[in-house]
Amino acid sequence: MKFNIALLAGDGIGPEVIEQAVKVSDAVAEKFGHEITWKPALTGAAAIDAVGEPYPDETHEICASSDAVLFGAIGHPKFDNDPTAPVRPEQGLLKMRKKLGLFANVRPTFVFPSLLDKSPLKKERIEGTDLVFFRELTSGVYFGEKGRKDDGNTAYDTNMYTREEITRLARKGFEAAMQRSKKLCCVDKANVMETSRLWRETVQGLEKEYPEVTVSYEFVDAVAMRLVQWPKDYDVLITENLFGDVLTDEASVISGSMGLMPSASLGTSVSLFEPIHGSYPQAAGKNIANPMATVLSAAMMFENFNLLEEGKVIRDAVNKALAEGIVTEDLAEGGKAYGTKEVGDWLAANI
Amino acid sequence: MKFNIALLAGDGIGPEVIEQAVKVSDAVAEKFGHEITWKPALTGAAAIDAVGEPYPDETHEICASSDAVLFGAIGHPKFDNDPTAPVRPEQGLLKMRKKLGLFANVRPTFVFPSLLDKSPLKKERIEGTDLVFFRELTSGVYFGEKGRKDDGNTAYDTNMYTREEITRLARKGFEAAMQRSKKLCCVDKANVMETSRLWRETVQGLEKEYPEVTVSYEFVDAVAMRLVQWPKDYDVLITENLFGDVLTDEASVISGSMGLMPSASLGTSVSLFEPIHGSYPQAAGKNIANPMATVLSAAMMFENFNLLEEGKVIRDAVNKALAEGIVTEDLAEGGKAYGTKEVGDWLAANI
Ligand SMILES: CC(C)[C@H](C(=O)O)[C@@H](O)C(=O)O
Ligand SMILES: CC(C)[C@H](C(=O)O)[C@@H](O)C(=O)O
Repeated sequence: MKFNIALLAGDGIGPEVIEQAVKVSDAVAEKFGHEITWKPALTGAAAIDAVGEPYPDETHEICASSDAVLFGAIGHPKFDNDPTAPVRPEQGLLKMRKKLGLFANVRPTFVFPSLLDKSPLKKERIEGTDLVFFRELTSGVYFGEKGRKDDGNTAYDTNMYTREEITRLARKGFEAAMQRSKKLCCVDKANVMETSRLWRETVQGLEKEYPEVTVSYEFVDAVAMRLVQWPKDYDVLITENLFGDVLTDEASVISGSMGLMPSASLGTSVSLFEPIHGSYPQAAGKNIANPMATVLSAAMMFENFNLLEEGKVIRDAVNKALAEGIVTEDLAEGGKAYGTKEVGDWLAANI
Repeated sequence: MKFNIALLAGDGIGPEVIEQAVKVSDAVAEKFGHEITWKPALTGAAAIDAVGEPYPDETHEICASSDAVLFGAIGHPKFDNDPTAPVRPEQGLLKMRKKLGLFANVRPTFVFPSLLDKSPLKKERIEGTDLVFFRELTSGVYFGEKGRKDDGNTAYDTNMYTREEITRLARKGFEAAMQRSKKLCCVDKANVMETSRLWRETVQGLEKEYPEVTVSYEFVDAVAMRLVQWPKDYDVLITENLFGDVLTDEASVISGSMGLMPSASLGTSVSLFEPIHGSYPQAAGKNIANPMATVLSAAMMFENFNLLEEGKVIRDAVNKALAEGIVTEDLAEGGKAYGTKEVGDWLAANI
């Protein structure tokens, strides 16, 4: 097969980790007879510096006309803690999500047996954890009407959801549940919020189309607790944009493998793949960043093209690297630390 | 001193644990020469069953004319998972908060050295944890306009905050920080929400009145992560209603002493004190519920009257009971388990 992949390296360690994912993807393409054309484009602080805009139109054209987007990381300290700055990298992120219609953010949390000790949680609590969040990404309070009244002394935000928005996100969750253990948890705050009641109603309406899936409904505060207490209890979780923002980040620390977690943002036509970690500017250019989360994001990309074998060889290579200690300094534990590039080379050579 | 205390036992184990807190408070009153008049009133499912209303007017009169409210727990399985039922116990809770003006929910999370092993987190991560949330409780999305449009196919909720609402909550946080380690964290989502930007602006404006307090601003998703990773990094945290709902519940599990955590909801005239645990209907009437969280809530009540010594004797008695193994079955660890009433008797006798 032939693919055009938009390549949005972004800021900080983004370019370095993306380079390794490209290397590994090219090795996969060669092995399976695919052809990938990479289309680099600007985003984040890098794009603000170059053209004054975090998600330039030209970048959007490239993304929209590609088969997928591979994304590094964005964010730069000079924009930190100034949510009122006129142009900020995260505005580009939100614009990109909306314009590309990336409505379902898929965030798996799973454990690597060799890394269990890195978790702040006790080993027996997390062993075997394997859950995945489907977070709605293009609606809710992120995109609702907001503003000020009373001379700026009153502020408001509107959270809004339509039945269709909920349905298309929920279907992704049900489909994933069918491929997994047929357990789905809808996370809401239906004892307080009207949007949550519509979520619950809509998901209840879909239950009959997926009779094999056991659906539970839990309040967001209860899930925030139980995720830390009993992460193994969960499998597929679906939720709205803001709850998903908080809970997926919370979930990412429990496995102890946060630096390795990939993600996907599924769109109506094009989908995007990126590591969940940030741009980590302190490490930029030092060849020390761990590229595995980005490499695993490339695996999700192949799997999303339904190329399951291609995804699997990448996952196998990563597992092998972990087992053999071919890791960057964050995982070296006093052993030998390899560079970002060396880990990428090793993974590509082991495809 | 003379006090009238409204006594809202509520549902499930509420009446049993409240009984012990009354016993202990009476022992304190006797020791220090105070006089407490208890004013029992109906609330929760118990009130729905009796008068069709979870927070009857008569209960409100009693609360509003008392010096404080001591609250057990509400909630009954027959109302669970039916957020569309016409009358629900939690509506009474919200009505009570609003009508009594309980604007600041104070939720401490601290550790008992003998209980560290109960935490899902590793001991070295939580040892020494001592943080307190100030959650705004009478505004935000809980009380904003909400409804449906498009034949019920679109739902919305409005989150709204005024500068005054933020100011009075934030001041409580600053004052607590001054009594503690002079560190305050404002939790918001100012990169997305206008209400959060008003929170940040308002808190920034207060900084100069409390020059000794070091203030940090963190996004809610980052705090959801870092609370699990490094709970010891936090001291006083202030936040809005919905973020507080999620984060205080998350924080409650990290200490391993969830069943022991008290809370206060400070109002403009009267304040309320309650354990953070639920009504635990399965245990109701069995004399097995742990009364310590409710007893410690009574300690917070005395402290809020500025009777610090009275609060301290209660805390000392609880610590002594824990050290000597005078505990209910949830903490017995194979040792002897005492009944709810026996623990209450022991605590009262040790005041
Ligand atoms: C940067 C921010 C706007 C963004 C969000 O809240 O969605 C981030 O936290 C994320 O989860 O991707
Ligand atoms: C029962 C519910 C409405 C309530 C809330 O969300 O405030 C509860 O979760 C709490 O935190 O006291």
